[in-house]
Amino acid sequence: MSFSEEDLEGLLASITPVDQDIMAQAQVRLDNLTKPLGALGMLEELAKRMCGIQGRLAPSVAKKIILTFAGDHGVVEEGVSAVPAEVTQQMVANFLAGGAGVNVLANHVGAEVRVIDVGVAVPVAGDGLIQAKVKAGADNIRKGPAMSEEEALQAIGVGVKVARDAINDGAEILGTGEMGIGNTTPSAALFAAFLDLPAAAITGRGTGISDEALARKIQVVDDALVINKERCQAPLSTLAALGGLEIAAICGMIIEAASRKVAVVVDGFISSAAALTAMEMNPQVLDYCFFSHMSAEQGHRLFFEKTGIAPILHLGLRLGEGTGAALAMNLVDAGVKILTQMATFGQAGVDHGEILDGVTEV
Amino acid sequence: MSFSEEDLEGLLASITPVDQDIMAQAQVRLDNLTKPLGALGMLEELAKRMCGIQGRLAPSVAKKIILTFAGDHGVVEEGVSAVPAEVTQQMVANFLAGGAGVNVLANHVGAEVRVIDVGVAVPVAGDGLIQAKVKAGADNIRKGPAMSEEEALQAIGVGVKVARDAINDGAEILGTGEMGIGNTTPSAALFAAFLDLPAAAITGRGTGISDEALARKIQVVDDALVINKERCQAPLSTLAALGGLEIAAICGMIIEAASRKVAVVVDGFISSAAALTAMEMNPQVLDYCFFSHMSAEQGHRLFFEKTGIAPILHLGLRLGEGTGAALAMNLVDAGVKILTQMATFGQAGVDHGEILDGVTEV
Repeated sequence: MSFSEEDLEGLLASITPVDQDIMAQAQVRLDNLTKPLGALGMLEELAKRMCGIQGRLAPSVAKKIILTFAGDHGVVEEGVSAVPAEVTQQMVANFLAGGAGVNVLANHVGAEVRVIDVGVAVPVAGDGLIQAKVKAGADNIRKGPAMSEEEALQAIGVGVKVARDAINDGAEILGTGEMGIGNTTPSAALFAAFLDLPAAAITGRGTGISDEALARKIQVVDDALVINKERCQAPLSTLAALGGLEIAAICGMIIEAASRKVAVVVDGFISSAAALTAMEMNPQVLDYCFFSHMSAEQGHRLFFEKTGIAPILHLGLRLGEGTGAALAMNLVDAGVKILTQMATFGQAGVDHGEILDGVTEV
Repeated sequence: MSFSEEDLEGLLASITPVDQDIMAQAQVRLDNLTKPLGALGMLEELAKRMCGIQGRLAPSVAKKIILTFAGDHGVVEEGVSAVPAEVTQQMVANFLAGGAGVNVLANHVGAEVRVIDVGVAVPVAGDGLIQAKVKAGADNIRKGPAMSEEEALQAIGVGVKVARDAINDGAEILGTGEMGIGNTTPSAALFAAFLDLPAAAITGRGTGISDEALARKIQVVDDALVINKERCQAPLSTLAALGGLEIAAICGMIIEAASRKVAVVVDGFISSAAALTAMEMNPQVLDYCFFSHMSAEQGHRLFFEKTGIAPILHLGLRLGEGTGAALAMNLVDAGVKILTQMATFGQAGVDHGEILDGVTEV
């Protein structure tokens, strides 16, 4: 049952690039559809990459599953969040009852939501909850590491296992989600460590803190980086030092999905920190990730600028849970339908003028 | 049957503001949902405005209809488009057969597409086509007006009539769409006239023209503005001088929808020119319009900057037809579901800390 460093290394080594030949064929088909070249913008890019991921010209993302991992954070004792830590467990109950934002949006796009306790501070239960607690909350990163490397490995293993089950259940695309009061703080610390950014640039207001609390949160991130500096030697040890249990689980989920050639739609700021951790372990996971949106959380923009990744949506979201992933999955689906359902010039008897030749006048 | 200037004036005068009281109540509910204040960003704004438009706290946008108007443009003889004018009629056939981008995306979001011939240059027919041709293509705006004011009025009347029928059939939200080879040219001319912009700033590559053709297209827009200068005294006369039949019809559709308190999702560059024309006739139509996306067509950004309107999507689309409207309708729907289906703090037993009081520390 236990997940070892060898298991992780094996998974990382099993990730192969997406199929460039199929992507080139997809581009030819996209260029023959009844529209000007490239006129459907990002939808075309999403469709082409789905072809590369699934290795076929008619990919399917009909079966969508969002995995929402919950975990707590000892660093909330530093006053970094606007809401009490108890909200993590209360929101788990809300997810299970179907009343949260991610439930509504997943239902809207035809996705299933699975909720996993990987690190809630107190016992939680409820119909449908996947019980996989590794530790009752991460420790306060201002005072030391969030968890041991062994705990980080086990939390990664939870993400691997839950993703594997979802894929074995037929998931054709996965969405990441998380719930954890305080988790923008460890996420900011991970971004700062991996992207070599100052805490003040990457740290934001999370659930909505005051100027004074923001100044304190920046100091907390700075202190966490200093006290954990020696521990941050490799992606896994950095994750253990600065991260959180749900962040580690999302990292594992992404690695498993990439190794199985299944697309992952990455939700927001916290999920991006998990994706960045996975990218630090093996940059090829990026081929399998779609970044759902540019969060309103300050710092997310820096992540995109530093990595050159283009997020799909710009809606000012900052809720997490998988809400942005749900919306963006639906656009990946739309792109796939464009590729697979639109008529070609030949089928529709539409002149394409000289568009296909690159000559542009009539 | 004929649509008169008095009919237009009557419709414009019948437009009233959205219900601000209901919007304030919607804001209270949004703030009580189980999420940080404002954390669902633009989705919350979309939901709140839908409440104001429909005058109720539980709006519905379940029944969606996209109206795609087709018309030709004499200005294509100036070499302003990358594709031959015949593509307009060919694409009408493609719409009716269900093979175009708008068909695929409308189907994806559960919207119906209605196709209207308001100004195709040649006779067109086909199952489901709404035959309402006012004129066999707009005239070349480089040489004079696109149409007479009477013809513009009749084209507006077509949009009014088709929107009225759709609303009477139960449409709770409408999307605009158009097909007309050459129609970014009259759209650029309308933007230039109404927003007092130079042709070079607002004119773009449309279906994908070369640098040389773009220079010519800018000159054509400049010439059109000069030759029609005296005619551009009022919104209707400007529309007649510089516009097109499908643009006039979309303008009429928007006015009818606003007068009936039905939301309209405005598609892209060309539809925005029609919406701007309607806004020039009565600025209150803006309350009823959602702008679906920032087009890749150069100049669309200027429209948004000049008007202060925030588009919903940024996907690099530049196809028209109603494709962007289809995608954005789905986000309006998502916003409405957030408002109407998410649990409140009280319902879910979730602490909201001091969020609601604006106090932001734990």
